[in-house]
Amino acid sequence: MKKFNYMDVEPESLEEGKGVKRRWLITREIGAENFFMRLYEVEPGGFTPLHSHPWEHEVFILEGEGVAVGGSEECKLREGDVLFIPGGEPHQLRNESDKVLKFLCLIPAVD
Amino acid sequence: MKKFNYMDVEPESLEEGKGVKRRWLITREIGAENFFMRLYEVEPGGFTPLHSHPWEHEVFILEGEGVAVGGSEECKLREGDVLFIPGGEPHQLRNESDKVLKFLCLIPAVD
Repeated sequence: MKKFNYMDVEPESLEEGKGVKRRWLITREIGAENFFMRLYEVEPGGFTPLHSHPWEHEVFILEGEGVAVGGSEECKLREGDVLFIPGGEPHQLRNESDKVLKFLCLIPAVD
Repeated sequence: MKKFNYMDVEPESLEEGKGVKRRWLITREIGAENFFMRLYEVEPGGFTPLHSHPWEHEVFILEGEGVAVGGSEECKLREGDVLFIPGGEPHQLRNESDKVLKFLCLIPAVD
């Protein structure tokens, strides 16, 4: 068993998008072979890049409010919301509130 | 993209352990092929069964406090803690506090 707090993991700033920090929590180095856990923090007015890739996202909103874009859809986000974004669908998460938007985003092992 | 709140998913009571409810959030029915997301709520004094299985757990503590058992180790849990429990390791989560312990627990697609 490995245990740590997400705050113990150094965040990296994303070059794409705006005002986004990412912490890689559970990775291959930790022992994960099937899927990886990351925590994102998006500052007010920030957004992740609008992009797509072959793998899916599983997202859980921890704090804050925002908007998710997936394909031609848009929906509001709040704490406790769950998103499944299938592989190949263009997507983006935006923080249009005045507080940090914090969420987990998990992906299959793709490296 | 599929979006819903975790509260929209009906919880099931676990027969094993004590005082544990589980909501299956992201499943094969939602479109997930690689890994599944579940949310657990453990009432004060409750615990998950002490068991083991070949697949790993990736856990994120959302609310509350507790104790995790993994192999011969025990550690305290608080909000924001991350656990990686490798496949084959006997494990249990216990709530020794007076508030609900809430966590996400993800597993690879094993069905």
